[in-house]
Amino acid sequence: MTQAVVIHGPRDLRLEAREEAAPGSGQVAIRIARGGICGSDLHYYQHGGFGAVRLREPMVLGHEVAGHVAALGPGVTGLAVGDAVAVNPSLPCGACRHCLAGRANHCLDMRFYGSAMRLPHVQGGFIGHLVCEAARAVALPPGMAPELAAFAEPLAVVLHAARQAGPLLGARVLVMGAGPIGCLAIAAARHAGAQEVVATDLHAAPLLFARRMGADRTIALHEDPEALAPYGLEKGHFDVVFEASGSGAALAAAIQAARPQAVVVQLGLGGDVPLALSALVAKEITLRGTFRFHEEFALAVEALARGWIDPLPLLSATLPVGEAVEAFELAGDRARAMKVQLAF
Amino acid sequence: MTQAVVIHGPRDLRLEAREEAAPGSGQVAIRIARGGICGSDLHYYQHGGFGAVRLREPMVLGHEVAGHVAALGPGVTGLAVGDAVAVNPSLPCGACRHCLAGRANHCLDMRFYGSAMRLPHVQGGFIGHLVCEAARAVALPPGMAPELAAFAEPLAVVLHAARQAGPLLGARVLVMGAGPIGCLAIAAARHAGAQEVVATDLHAAPLLFARRMGADRTIALHEDPEALAPYGLEKGHFDVVFEASGSGAALAAAIQAARPQAVVVQLGLGGDVPLALSALVAKEITLRGTFRFHEEFALAVEALARGWIDPLPLLSATLPVGEAVEAFELAGDRARAMKVQLAF
Amino acid sequence: MTQAVVIHGPRDLRLEAREEAAPGSGQVAIRIARGGICGSDLHYYQHGGFGAVRLREPMVLGHEVAGHVAALGPGVTGLAVGDAVAVNPSLPCGACRHCLAGRANHCLDMRFYGSAMRLPHVQGGFIGHLVCEAARAVALPPGMAPELAAFAEPLAVVLHAARQAGPLLGARVLVMGAGPIGCLAIAAARHAGAQEVVATDLHAAPLLFARRMGADRTIALHEDPEALAPYGLEKGHFDVVFEASGSGAALAAAIQAARPQAVVVQLGLGGDVPLALSALVAKEITLRGTFRFHEEFALAVEALARGWIDPLPLLSATLPVGEAVEAFELAGDRARAMKVQLAF
Amino acid sequence: MTQAVVIHGPRDLRLEAREEAAPGSGQVAIRIARGGICGSDLHYYQHGGFGAVRLREPMVLGHEVAGHVAALGPGVTGLAVGDAVAVNPSLPCGACRHCLAGRANHCLDMRFYGSAMRLPHVQGGFIGHLVCEAARAVALPPGMAPELAAFAEPLAVVLHAARQAGPLLGARVLVMGAGPIGCLAIAAARHAGAQEVVATDLHAAPLLFARRMGADRTIALHEDPEALAPYGLEKGHFDVVFEASGSGAALAAAIQAARPQAVVVQLGLGGDVPLALSALVAKEITLRGTFRFHEEFALAVEALARGWIDPLPLLSATLPVGEAVEAFELAGDRARAMKVQLAF
Repeated sequence: MTQAVVIHGPRDLRLEAREEAAPGSGQVAIRIARGGICGSDLHYYQHGGFGAVRLREPMVLGHEVAGHVAALGPGVTGLAVGDAVAVNPSLPCGACRHCLAGRANHCLDMRFYGSAMRLPHVQGGFIGHLVCEAARAVALPPGMAPELAAFAEPLAVVLHAARQAGPLLGARVLVMGAGPIGCLAIAAARHAGAQEVVATDLHAAPLLFARRMGADRTIALHEDPEALAPYGLEKGHFDVVFEASGSGAALAAAIQAARPQAVVVQLGLGGDVPLALSALVAKEITLRGTFRFHEEFALAVEALARGWIDPLPLLSATLPVGEAVEAFELAGDRARAMKVQLAF
Repeated sequence: MTQAVVIHGPRDLRLEAREEAAPGSGQVAIRIARGGICGSDLHYYQHGGFGAVRLREPMVLGHEVAGHVAALGPGVTGLAVGDAVAVNPSLPCGACRHCLAGRANHCLDMRFYGSAMRLPHVQGGFIGHLVCEAARAVALPPGMAPELAAFAEPLAVVLHAARQAGPLLGARVLVMGAGPIGCLAIAAARHAGAQEVVATDLHAAPLLFARRMGADRTIALHEDPEALAPYGLEKGHFDVVFEASGSGAALAAAIQAARPQAVVVQLGLGGDVPLALSALVAKEITLRGTFRFHEEFALAVEALARGWIDPLPLLSATLPVGEAVEAFELAGDRARAMKVQLAF
Repeated sequence: MTQAVVIHGPRDLRLEAREEAAPGSGQVAIRIARGGICGSDLHYYQHGGFGAVRLREPMVLGHEVAGHVAALGPGVTGLAVGDAVAVNPSLPCGACRHCLAGRANHCLDMRFYGSAMRLPHVQGGFIGHLVCEAARAVALPPGMAPELAAFAEPLAVVLHAARQAGPLLGARVLVMGAGPIGCLAIAAARHAGAQEVVATDLHAAPLLFARRMGADRTIALHEDPEALAPYGLEKGHFDVVFEASGSGAALAAAIQAARPQAVVVQLGLGGDVPLALSALVAKEITLRGTFRFHEEFALAVEALARGWIDPLPLLSATLPVGEAVEAFELAGDRARAMKVQLAF
Repeated sequence: MTQAVVIHGPRDLRLEAREEAAPGSGQVAIRIARGGICGSDLHYYQHGGFGAVRLREPMVLGHEVAGHVAALGPGVTGLAVGDAVAVNPSLPCGACRHCLAGRANHCLDMRFYGSAMRLPHVQGGFIGHLVCEAARAVALPPGMAPELAAFAEPLAVVLHAARQAGPLLGARVLVMGAGPIGCLAIAAARHAGAQEVVATDLHAAPLLFARRMGADRTIALHEDPEALAPYGLEKGHFDVVFEASGSGAALAAAIQAARPQAVVVQLGLGGDVPLALSALVAKEITLRGTFRFHEEFALAVEALARGWIDPLPLLSATLPVGEAVEAFELAGDRARAMKVQLAF
């Protein structure tokens, strides 16, 4: 038997025992070592979902997991028992029109771990013994620790976001919202050659991390709401904004501080926010959503393995899976935690 | 003496006599023949401005004007008295950082006719005898009528918008809002090789024009609010949307009907509208503002002269300048009029 | 029995009888009506191949064919016996890494009709009774004639080429080489909104067609080799060049006449040509190859059906398949013919 | 009096005394400290020019210089005597059509130091006391040494080249030619987030530097001419190639090793090289020239000051200006030297 972290409804997170299944054809079994708690995990935990995506049945959470291969199903090659792997939560069909157009993250038959978008829900990776398609298991370079590999997924998200911004070499970049995604976006922008990175948040604690991840300057908007205003002179300063807060006020400030024809990459999910069309129009701002990732997962593993990006300053705490509820509570408290991982 | 159409405040439009000035160095005098009433003229007339742009002193309206050269100031070459010209209302400085970055429509010292953005306001072109910089006077090919040339400005706006969409060759295009700008956007999309053009409006009358300007299909959203829904299947259909209504409901419908990674070009000005961030993010929509034009003015003149785009179906009425108030009232009534021109 | 046009070697083209096969599962049989002779057909006929692609076994030629569905194999839906169809000669695998990256024209397992790139060669479409995968059969709108539909393939080639140029709306375009592909490129540029189209050739006859297909100006370089020079002033004039001659001298002239950062789309195949690196570098020219097409085939059918592009002025002659050798000789004589079709 | 390094013809380099002029209005005088010898300097020294650019009068060489402000002319603000500066050799006019289109490196009235493109030639920076327009003097951050600052110009060249490649984040990059520019291109690609960088050369010595500048793998093509062949499997591997050798054989190998639709950025100047059109076409390769730089000069200064890129491993030797001929001989010997600087 193995333990799984199962969400049943808002604030109803349970540790459940599951059978240790044997991998079928083309599958592998993975002994999960670490799993990072993500913002969407927290949305399920706190609210039972987000937007139109609502929990309709119990679901194993988690899509930031890494571990070691425990068993190989028939026909699997290229992996061996004991291999350290990161688990790619994204599995597009490879056959629909979006896959064939090179945009697999919009696959019509996507199976993304720990997501209630489709019914039955796609069960997630917070389980000690995970049976998955071999294609999901990305072998790690020797010596790469699972706690590092468990950052591959959120790093892939921001690397994909960085690519939506166009070339960042020499760019002046603003990152709004310095949670785990915002902080990784800072590192990604730096890794892509940004010339200047300014980060904002409404809390002091995350901004300390923002600076550690590479921000040249941090702005505590709760202390000085007008601090961005000078960037708006001469029609604006920033070439690229990563909007990672999901707040309408932040989006408005982003448009104000951005130069004409700048790109605002929208990472933060949120409900309806007010958008000033005339400001967007008058500056010809490009506001572009970014969603998950595709080939960036392998890139993220390599960036972590080679030390191009070090996310470990963001790892606030690692709790045993038996304390999953405490871990979720901690992860949801921005004053106390950035990234929280479960140890299996 | 010459007559000018001067706005003093909401619904306070006056016909005023002005001296016929002689052109100074580098200037020309133009005997204006026709002037089209634009949406921003109407905003000044109906509301005294739009967004943060408010009338602070009396201003001659008008930026869609054409006529004939009446006199040349010292040093002007390349034009002769009697030449038919379209007047380019846009005059960037050619020296600021935005001009030097190839985005002259964002010039820090722009002098755009009939605009209250700066103080003193830049007086407009609804005046019988217009003295302007020679660079604004674009000579027309032989035989091109002033009523056609007076469409150069709004056509330049939509040609610039079309360029913000990326390549349109073979694109499936949705145009939301079938006023004069929406209808010209249909023609521009067609001219740029769009494969399919669907147009929507909340009124029946404009959709007749939409079809004449090249729409394959028109949708009366007030009669069938769900008519766009089938386009949203399989994550959406349209490659490009021109959003020319300025309505939040239209923008939401646009995002729904657009395919992943589509471009929504925002033409319509408006106040704050609600934007569903999660929809924009999940489909990686690019929402891009478009503002005025630059080199597209000359292109518009040529497109009109060569008959690539024929805007005359949109010309609802031509009134003598003495009936300017009636002309503005008519232009503001979408049930009765598309484009209304003044004859000087 | 049915007749096929089979190439055995240089100048060894034979009319051979073949069995009329029944369509297998997922296949259809098509009664071919018209087939256009393409430049690559001519290369096989005249030289036994081109570049590294050489004939290694007898091969049915032809990839510009259209006709009517004669029989449906098991499991085929969406087509009916008697339907008029254009045959798409391109069939990518839909599974290799290039297909999944959205560049299916570079498929690692491409089966392109009448091509000796792979062994066994992929037999072509110059056969009275063609059995093919149903996916290749693109239904035509009612009333569309086969001689028009047989232009879908070369038109798809130039539409794909036009997309490699970036946006053409308002572009100043030079087309070098006014054979069938060059002439269709003129029409495609015009359809995509080019502002100016200049065409060159080394023979007088093709330039008459160039003008009919939409060129504003034609230049007979054999009569006036310096006629392009004025376009080179101030570092060059053209935004986009379609190089459809495959000649090094033409490429050098193209770079000279193009403005800095212009795009030269290379359509013409050829052997090694000399390239002046310093000219390419000093003007930051983009020289981009274009190869076949993918989704542009359906676009081409629609463009032909709706009359957006009319290729029929290019149709020099239609010969019965029994006179295939004469047809190939005629097609190879640029002084006498543009496009020659076979009638089956 | 001050000393200048003046080229009179092939192998005719002279040290000449010049008056120490006072800076005029808007000018500054700079006490030059270091000057790097560039490939184009070497071309003038070895061959009297390159391509169509030939020496027609004596010319001070040098465009990679840094030093300290010695005097300010009237009206100069923002600089003080004693300030350390890098000298930007590029001074576009800011008024021609290319400047206003955002491509100032193609200025019609460019004054680039040490260049025989125009007559009179633009004298260069290898002079102890340089009087130049204040706009050329880019102030250095405190503590930045002149030998570092003298790398700003070649680094600007490769940063501009990197931008011509499109986004490099996650790209697989091949650099052909590991001279100073190739080595800096390696560093620039790494700085912009390239995932893999492979470098080639025909000599062993430069490849040691290539590895120090960030190449993952180096290939000595003179030892193993087929070493790149495996990268050509499945139609090719590299997303981006920087071709810094100017050799036709290298260009052919680059196209072979690049994936379909890859970008080959041509840095290396050269005369006519053979280009296989059919290879370029069949893989839809983009071959793009890159020429000098514009805003990248300031970016280069910052990248050097902040240590994002460290070029000092490339500095082979620093010779006093009195030994300029020896310095040029050394710089021209690829077996012994990468970058050689003059000390004034």
